[in-house]
Amino acid sequence: MKTISLLGATGSIGTQTLDILRTHPTEFNLAAMSVGKNIELARKMVGEFKPELVSVQDYQDCVTLKAEYPNTKFTFGIEGLIEVAVYDKSNILVNAVLGSVGLNPTLQAIENGKIIAIANKETLVTAGHLIMEAAKRNNVPLLPVDSEHSAIFQALQGEKERNIERLIITASGGSFRERTRQELENVTVKEALNHPNWSMGAKITIDSATMMNKGLEVIEAHWLFDMPYEKIDVLLHKESIIHSMIEFHDSSIIAQLGTPDMRVPIQYALTYPERLPLPSSKRLNLANVGKLHFQEMDVERFRCLRFAYEAGKIGGTLPTVLNAANEVAVASFLEGKIRFLQIEDLIEKALNSHQSIDYPSLDTIQEVDIETRQFVHSLL
Amino acid sequence: MKTISLLGATGSIGTQTLDILRTHPTEFNLAAMSVGKNIELARKMVGEFKPELVSVQDYQDCVTLKAEYPNTKFTFGIEGLIEVAVYDKSNILVNAVLGSVGLNPTLQAIENGKIIAIANKETLVTAGHLIMEAAKRNNVPLLPVDSEHSAIFQALQGEKERNIERLIITASGGSFRERTRQELENVTVKEALNHPNWSMGAKITIDSATMMNKGLEVIEAHWLFDMPYEKIDVLLHKESIIHSMIEFHDSSIIAQLGTPDMRVPIQYALTYPERLPLPSSKRLNLANVGKLHFQEMDVERFRCLRFAYEAGKIGGTLPTVLNAANEVAVASFLEGKIRFLQIEDLIEKALNSHQSIDYPSLDTIQEVDIETRQFVHSLL
Repeated sequence: MKTISLLGATGSIGTQTLDILRTHPTEFNLAAMSVGKNIELARKMVGEFKPELVSVQDYQDCVTLKAEYPNTKFTFGIEGLIEVAVYDKSNILVNAVLGSVGLNPTLQAIENGKIIAIANKETLVTAGHLIMEAAKRNNVPLLPVDSEHSAIFQALQGEKERNIERLIITASGGSFRERTRQELENVTVKEALNHPNWSMGAKITIDSATMMNKGLEVIEAHWLFDMPYEKIDVLLHKESIIHSMIEFHDSSIIAQLGTPDMRVPIQYALTYPERLPLPSSKRLNLANVGKLHFQEMDVERFRCLRFAYEAGKIGGTLPTVLNAANEVAVASFLEGKIRFLQIEDLIEKALNSHQSIDYPSLDTIQEVDIETRQFVHSLL
Repeated sequence: MKTISLLGATGSIGTQTLDILRTHPTEFNLAAMSVGKNIELARKMVGEFKPELVSVQDYQDCVTLKAEYPNTKFTFGIEGLIEVAVYDKSNILVNAVLGSVGLNPTLQAIENGKIIAIANKETLVTAGHLIMEAAKRNNVPLLPVDSEHSAIFQALQGEKERNIERLIITASGGSFRERTRQELENVTVKEALNHPNWSMGAKITIDSATMMNKGLEVIEAHWLFDMPYEKIDVLLHKESIIHSMIEFHDSSIIAQLGTPDMRVPIQYALTYPERLPLPSSKRLNLANVGKLHFQEMDVERFRCLRFAYEAGKIGGTLPTVLNAANEVAVASFLEGKIRFLQIEDLIEKALNSHQSIDYPSLDTIQEVDIETRQFVHSLL
């Protein structure tokens, strides 16, 4: 029986993680979880999974729930996230919280020896050097939940990193893969949220449309697999059937494939190094699919991908700027404050006005994160 | 340094195996080899690789070569194959000889504790039960050289056989994949030998056109991976880029991909569990390939595949009949004695007229092999 702390329980990855727990009730137990403001869904989860500790975003929700569930411990805020992450009965932290708020809880959990199933992109993007060093020092496995990184991680089983020639991360191309830059000028929020393959949260769906999602994945892959950026390629593959690949130096390529179902990589992280059946997942039938398509990635068409490679290669605090600027820009787009292509412009301005600091501490990362957000807000 | 015995040195797999040895002279050493009647090529190989022991098919060639190379030991015939297979300085046997003659040397090498890199299909097809039992008893790894089985073997690294849902063996469809059965009536030997993707020997190229090659591979996969026939599927994939796949019970699929280059699986078998660079192998560029196609396999169109599944499921001596009848039929077709579709008819007649014997010994297998050849010859 593995005991789990789950950050971001009511989000897309969170609810699918709980679906895995529901599928294998004798394998997994939810000890602690965090939710944001979706208190109605949190109530259902508390009723069903009976976690001992629940953290909510706001103090008032914490007070309300305490009165309703006297046998459950409630907490709140940033401190609450950390309490959930390091909860002593848990041996795995599933970090599915959105945004840079996920960073410190991950670091604390690593220092407490928890196995980390990481769906929070910002953790590795902004603090990969700190996370990987801490994981190594504490001998803690970092298990990717993202479908692309899980694909690479699965393909890597039984292989040695030193034999890798390059990683090939596939990209669906997002909601606007068929459109030219001109056609992107006036796209709506609704259009951007209509991802062709994956059902995901709003922020990540927009990141797929701008290709920033893939850019962040490249930076994550750099850290997770200790791979120089020159050895990480992105390949357009609109069906999202091949989730990613590893080419070895003998020219052999190992790939992981499947229907787009995030529960597969989530479950793999939870069951690793074992696999468990997942009968409710739709099987891939390649004969029915008929064709798989592949295309070179155009970094001029998808400027955010180029920004990510550049920020990743320079490193230091630049990926933090990339990420924070993107978060503010995407939120502004979702709120209807800016147009789609202005997301790129805001990120570019933020990157150009920042002088990167090498090997930043957690405090420095958090300062740069806040400064960047203020800077981008000042441009709105 | 790994020391190698190579059966079938002048064939397609044999020469490519020597190319791998040429690429990595500090890793591999050729101690012993067998050749058939291509004495001219054998002379070049003796000059270049300086094996200590060489077996040739005919006595007269043995006498000739002995006179030319006084420092090399020569032998001949079936006994010579076994001498090469069990040569005491060798730790790996690469069995790339064609036909059922490859069976006994493999068994003897296993009993002598050699690692087996197996390219000889007939070994597992006719005597899978004996080979796998002997390999297990002697704790000897059986490493597949065939691209499909190597793909499955590579995909299986770091995974557990018990988690496999099914094997998916890909098939290019061979020379006649676009033709209907009617259009196959009068195809020529030359047309049949024109394989679209792979450069291989004549027998295996015809087997690809009839789909018997895939049928034999299904039976081999059954033995190599201890998989019931119900869990082995064949998928038409005309580009031969995905060499085969494993679907696990969590619905995740691991595949091995590459350009069609037999040196990759050959080298993998030789370097296993390590990988070495193979700079001369053409890298796969999926963006240039553009599209991969997949189609259901039609066992009515490709009757030999159905025969193989049926013979495999019944087991006993029936796969021996399948294989021997096919060898004679293909040879007859290559000699212009029968038409293409008569290959299938001869195999079907041989299968229908045989009463399978369960758990046959090596002697029984060899008797049935001879009887079947006589039977098919009697039909010509």
